[in-house]
Amino acid sequence: MIELLTIGDELLLGSTVDTNAAFLGTRLTAAGFRVLRLTTVGDREPEIRDALLSALRRTGCVICTGGLGPTPDDLTRPVVAALYGRELLLDEHWLAELEGRFQARGMAMPANNRQQALVPDCAVLLPNQRGTAPGLALSDPALGTTVLLPGVPAEMRSLLEAQVLPYLAVQFGPRPPVRSRTLRTTGMAESALAERLAGVGDDLSHLTLAYLPTGTGIDLRLTTWGELEEPDAERVLAEGEQRLRQAVGDLIYGTGNEDLAAVLGVHLGRRQLRLAVAESCTGGLLAARITAVPGSSDYFLGGVVAYANSAKQALLGVADATLGQYGAVSEKVALELARGAVQSTGADCGLAITGIAGPAGGTPDRPVGTVWIAMQVPGESRAERFRFAGSRDEIRARAAQAALALLLRALR
Amino acid sequence: MIELLTIGDELLLGSTVDTNAAFLGTRLTAAGFRVLRLTTVGDREPEIRDALLSALRRTGCVICTGGLGPTPDDLTRPVVAALYGRELLLDEHWLAELEGRFQARGMAMPANNRQQALVPDCAVLLPNQRGTAPGLALSDPALGTTVLLPGVPAEMRSLLEAQVLPYLAVQFGPRPPVRSRTLRTTGMAESALAERLAGVGDDLSHLTLAYLPTGTGIDLRLTTWGELEEPDAERVLAEGEQRLRQAVGDLIYGTGNEDLAAVLGVHLGRRQLRLAVAESCTGGLLAARITAVPGSSDYFLGGVVAYANSAKQALLGVADATLGQYGAVSEKVALELARGAVQSTGADCGLAITGIAGPAGGTPDRPVGTVWIAMQVPGESRAERFRFAGSRDEIRARAAQAALALLLRALR
Repeated sequence: MIELLTIGDELLLGSTVDTNAAFLGTRLTAAGFRVLRLTTVGDREPEIRDALLSALRRTGCVICTGGLGPTPDDLTRPVVAALYGRELLLDEHWLAELEGRFQARGMAMPANNRQQALVPDCAVLLPNQRGTAPGLALSDPALGTTVLLPGVPAEMRSLLEAQVLPYLAVQFGPRPPVRSRTLRTTGMAESALAERLAGVGDDLSHLTLAYLPTGTGIDLRLTTWGELEEPDAERVLAEGEQRLRQAVGDLIYGTGNEDLAAVLGVHLGRRQLRLAVAESCTGGLLAARITAVPGSSDYFLGGVVAYANSAKQALLGVADATLGQYGAVSEKVALELARGAVQSTGADCGLAITGIAGPAGGTPDRPVGTVWIAMQVPGESRAERFRFAGSRDEIRARAAQAALALLLRALR
Repeated sequence: MIELLTIGDELLLGSTVDTNAAFLGTRLTAAGFRVLRLTTVGDREPEIRDALLSALRRTGCVICTGGLGPTPDDLTRPVVAALYGRELLLDEHWLAELEGRFQARGMAMPANNRQQALVPDCAVLLPNQRGTAPGLALSDPALGTTVLLPGVPAEMRSLLEAQVLPYLAVQFGPRPPVRSRTLRTTGMAESALAERLAGVGDDLSHLTLAYLPTGTGIDLRLTTWGELEEPDAERVLAEGEQRLRQAVGDLIYGTGNEDLAAVLGVHLGRRQLRLAVAESCTGGLLAARITAVPGSSDYFLGGVVAYANSAKQALLGVADATLGQYGAVSEKVALELARGAVQSTGADCGLAITGIAGPAGGTPDRPVGTVWIAMQVPGESRAERFRFAGSRDEIRARAAQAALALLLRALR
């Protein structure tokens, strides 16, 4: 059993939502550890000390996040060192690493960062590739094990995966694994998906099926809770996956945390097709999704964000008459935008989005959330009308996701 | 002082991010209560009892969420009743209310819901307009006050505002409010910022100064912890803000949770300037940031994502010779991209980004993270070289933020 301790006034003041706790819970559970309790305290010495000591007494293993920065409100390192009765010693290797990083960027290291190379005696330093605060692990027979991680989510996550989970596995031995498999769907609401899966869910022995809405789709997660040994767990998961694919395979685009834009990129790369996009209401989000994938320059040529009608005409050759006759949010304009993206860049495939993300701009005919999406591949072009619910941000995100899904369906 | 106790296995398993805690923190802080600690436990009787008792001993006032539903894993009501030594009695009024609601929808009330009308003797029932679980408030001189709220965010929020805050004000009298003010900075690392603010932080009487990294900058938060009455608190905050602005005003772009793209939009709108962008490594992210702001169509014409060099030439008129002589990631190309954005759309201002987001593509001369950003405003154009640290996502996000900041500085 493990407890979590997240540290920071901003968490108690509510200015930051604690996403670290959920991430730690997910990953530790998957690694076979049970999280017993989570405590959050502010940046104050007695509170940190008291909460950590109580948590260690209950479980003997605590993972803390936060309070490792270079500023005076970062107290975790000295408080934990004092609790374990360890001196803080300068780690020359980490100091040199930090100085080297600043130097590589042509800067002198600020004096404040020096305290991030202070390490409690006998602690294990877990090098942080993404930031200046290293993770630290302390252990003794009386108190148990405390792992300190920075509060910046990206740093905490990569340290957890690369360093902390292996450290815990060595410290506590292998766990009976909780295994899960996630199938990612898009294009159907949770309740409709549940209807199509009505018979399947009840039938999965040794497995639970969870519906996890992601904002742009529903993830289906199958879990075995450590009752089964390998290879039975693996077999049961594979059977469950097959049942889900039989029922809703047309909506599944990937597994685990695969991104739809990355899956699409694999298909484009395999068929040596190059893509360009044109977008209005998504305003760059579609291109940003595509280019977030490393190596996307192999198949993505570029895009146009045609927010004003003048930009649609000048950059993409949409006809004045089409805009006048059908309006910017129409099948015809969507198709001309997709063709414009292809022609202006010399791409093989085009993808275009035009719609009304709100909050203003809706009409009775074309209410907020109305979006036309067009795709063009060699030998085929097609547009679909969507009506997305939600806020401006949600409508934009869902439109970009739907566009990627439309092209993926055409390619496979 | 108040403590929060959130109850539910899903919070420890990480399948749900605890947004209730942040909401409670924000609203209670604003109402003058200091939140000392947050504890999260699973749906187990000994854990709930132990955590609640410890929290009551520390502060004498605890707000719990979760575990009030109609299913067997909802334990909060009986556990708390037992702790206070109160019997659970059927509240006929609430039972009738529940039965009436089901009836109005043409349904018989499921038997399970009856337990939601069981109320500890002498507890105050806080009617829930949005769900079947009422809030409950218990108080006695030995233990103090415990408020129970449902875990469904919409129900919890409306009960907090309508019932709990007024109940606490009666119970504890009016509070001197905890007030805070946030100044948002970008363009300088936390440690360097702390160096520039070295003299200021120690000098702020009645105020604490916190550094909150956001990924694309550092928020500076000043807080008065309720020692001061109005108007003194307001005056002390205003003085603190002025000290910070004197020291690092050049880096501050906004207050509260203002977005840099929105602040820039206000400046563009005020001066009736229209913007277009051209971006390479950020791949649409800069345009997406700008168009995430409602009403951005008033000043944003569009943009080009020129990922391939051919797109830089075809869509933005970047000269073949410039690309050949200086390379795509260069001052000259950045300036030509900015000019191309302006000329191809007829905008007044242009903003351009070209760089290497990685993970591949770096060279000794131009390592991953090297980014040139150019801006053009009427009468001026300028480019700056940056070297961003971090992952591909982080470099892209930081480059987009730096571009927005560069243009904002030129406009004000």
